[in-house]
Amino acid sequence: MDLTPARGTRDLLPAAVAVRDHVLATITEVYRRYGYQRIETPALENTERLAGSQGGENEKLIYRVLRRGLPEILPEGTPVAELVDLGLRYDLTVPLSRFYGHNRAALPDPFRSFQVGPVWRAERPQKGRYRQFYQCDIDMLGEPGVLAEIELIEATTEALAATGLSGTTVRVSDRRFLSALAARAGLPEPAWDGLFITLDKLDKIGWEGVRAELSTRGLTGGQIEQLAGTITGLHGLGEGDLAGALAKALPDLSEDVLADLQESAGALGELARERDLKWEFDPTLVRGMGYYTGQIFEIVHPASSGSVAGGGRYDKLIGRFLGTDVPACGFSIGFERIVDLLGAPAERTAVAVLYEPEVPAAEALRVARRLRADGRSVSPVRRRGKFGAQLGRLEEWGFGSLVHLRADGAGEERQLGGS
Amino acid sequence: MDLTPARGTRDLLPAAVAVRDHVLATITEVYRRYGYQRIETPALENTERLAGSQGGENEKLIYRVLRRGLPEILPEGTPVAELVDLGLRYDLTVPLSRFYGHNRAALPDPFRSFQVGPVWRAERPQKGRYRQFYQCDIDMLGEPGVLAEIELIEATTEALAATGLSGTTVRVSDRRFLSALAARAGLPEPAWDGLFITLDKLDKIGWEGVRAELSTRGLTGGQIEQLAGTITGLHGLGEGDLAGALAKALPDLSEDVLADLQESAGALGELARERDLKWEFDPTLVRGMGYYTGQIFEIVHPASSGSVAGGGRYDKLIGRFLGTDVPACGFSIGFERIVDLLGAPAERTAVAVLYEPEVPAAEALRVARRLRADGRSVSPVRRRGKFGAQLGRLEEWGFGSLVHLRADGAGEERQLGGS
Repeated sequence: MDLTPARGTRDLLPAAVAVRDHVLATITEVYRRYGYQRIETPALENTERLAGSQGGENEKLIYRVLRRGLPEILPEGTPVAELVDLGLRYDLTVPLSRFYGHNRAALPDPFRSFQVGPVWRAERPQKGRYRQFYQCDIDMLGEPGVLAEIELIEATTEALAATGLSGTTVRVSDRRFLSALAARAGLPEPAWDGLFITLDKLDKIGWEGVRAELSTRGLTGGQIEQLAGTITGLHGLGEGDLAGALAKALPDLSEDVLADLQESAGALGELARERDLKWEFDPTLVRGMGYYTGQIFEIVHPASSGSVAGGGRYDKLIGRFLGTDVPACGFSIGFERIVDLLGAPAERTAVAVLYEPEVPAAEALRVARRLRADGRSVSPVRRRGKFGAQLGRLEEWGFGSLVHLRADGAGEERQLGGS
Repeated sequence: MDLTPARGTRDLLPAAVAVRDHVLATITEVYRRYGYQRIETPALENTERLAGSQGGENEKLIYRVLRRGLPEILPEGTPVAELVDLGLRYDLTVPLSRFYGHNRAALPDPFRSFQVGPVWRAERPQKGRYRQFYQCDIDMLGEPGVLAEIELIEATTEALAATGLSGTTVRVSDRRFLSALAARAGLPEPAWDGLFITLDKLDKIGWEGVRAELSTRGLTGGQIEQLAGTITGLHGLGEGDLAGALAKALPDLSEDVLADLQESAGALGELARERDLKWEFDPTLVRGMGYYTGQIFEIVHPASSGSVAGGGRYDKLIGRFLGTDVPACGFSIGFERIVDLLGAPAERTAVAVLYEPEVPAAEALRVARRLRADGRSVSPVRRRGKFGAQLGRLEEWGFGSLVHLRADGAGEERQLGGS
């Protein structure tokens, strides 16, 4: 029988799980101090909730689950859509929106949510990408002000630093700024998303590539130069001059947006002075999800080509479930990416009680129990084969020391390896 | 839009997750000290691995996942079975067997596995039963001797005691004993499982019910009385007389089985003297899973009508995946049942920074940051509505104290409730 995990999925061995658990415990402790409360939603959601939730491409990747009680041979002409009623969640934001709508009366206001768990996407398998992977999100629901944005950024940079990722840079922009930029460039609204997709590629294809793409999108040379000039002029502005420069470059930008961005900039500037952290306004930052409505942000780290966390404000998503809009802002840590970046600081404290076959099980267990009393990890292992070879295997399996137990008693504890 | 979770599933709110996390952390710490290493397998497995793995009734409850790339209208006469290639796991033992077969070369021998996570069964929804629920298993793979059984029982009773469930009773039996009992009763082998199913009900239907069922299974009155006499005579035997009494009652029982049971009995007796724990030999203990081959056990607690943990030896299951038999023994904690039994010791240490609307976000965040420095959970909450009513809500949401922040500065920290 083929024993490999299902295509595109993977087994996590003890060493990998230990790293993941360590990273998760570290992040959880930071978020706990910020008052984020962990919730869990079911892996399965009704299909109509997963569809039409602006998940874009992700909706095409949903694993669909067969209804129960179907006949084994289907009637002619049955559409596939009628065979399924459930799907596996492809992110944690759609389930959170449903959760909030369903449980709102019992939740604090604002509600600080912390979620971590697997999501599933039937993507084409490729190196380092899996069809089941963890997401790790915090969200603040019910807070309209930039306190939400700033706190989410503060908590997430602190969580990343606690895992060992210091020296991060926070990039900030705003969907409302992007809209004003697109309007100013003279594009009709249906063409804005296309502009944003192109701008988002600036890191990869440079200004030359962006200029070429924009001209295929129907912008004239003059429009493109004006846009490029605006963007270049705004890139990397600090807290001192951000609102002024934005107002000058885009006179139609509302006072609210300017005030929000200036308040975020001031608070981020303060954080950056206190911690090992940079921040910048990035006018080409887009973030893919169509549901963002206000500030958007991401965190980058020199060791990773992609961002290590991303998020933003989405004030209209919950309303689609609840019927009433609820201000909402979230930040998602790229859990799998961070685990890959950090790797394993192998802990070698486990003790093996290596017992000879003639030792009664009860005696091996008694010796283990005594050694375990001070909190150490202790396991009996039966003596087998060549002694030196077995010590090598114990070391390979992660044991740090051993006690050799013969019928006439236990020897001194001895360290493994380290020579 | 209907916002209830998918039928038979549930949302877990912060208070419920806090209890679950606490129980899980407690169990994990005990199992860590015994050297059990956490692994994770994907939620999805190929259907042919889930089917035919002696999961019995559970196999009928598998959530089946549609293949990707199907046409939206299916050709006439397509069997449902051809539409699916994956299923959600219904337990953690089948995936563990596949995992062990696939990763054996990289694993210690014996391998002490710890798994915790959701499984899915499309059961008829009923009170207290969910279609997604957690299982929490330890397994020792590669150890043929009763050291495995005894250690699993020791570790699991310790884990349960650590969560607060002391005063447990361990019930022990052996599938090989049950087979000898059935043979002695004069039943042909195909009828043994029926006998076991009936015996398993003794707790519920009493001897009268068992006698009635056994006569419908074709046993004569004389056979039934002999069986009842044997069982009654063996019930509750202690470590001193177990092997002798078994050998006398069932002369065909092999020396190996007697020696195993006597060794377990001795070790459990020793444990029972050291800890707040009872154990007994229970000749009517069956445990449902068809894959058990040797000793079986469960743990009961006065506060729960069903068992709180169960397990046994299954030396033939991994061989079905691997082609070679591997000795294996496992113990599964009824995680959901234990969480229900324990409920919540509500922790009320979180601090609210209740800031007036005119206070800048940065200042509210600054005050929260200072209070958070000593490790406490601190969250800004905007002042809103009547003061007394808001304090009531803060208390209801689990905050233990608050700092009231006005434009002219922060007040003293004050406790909430407790009066």
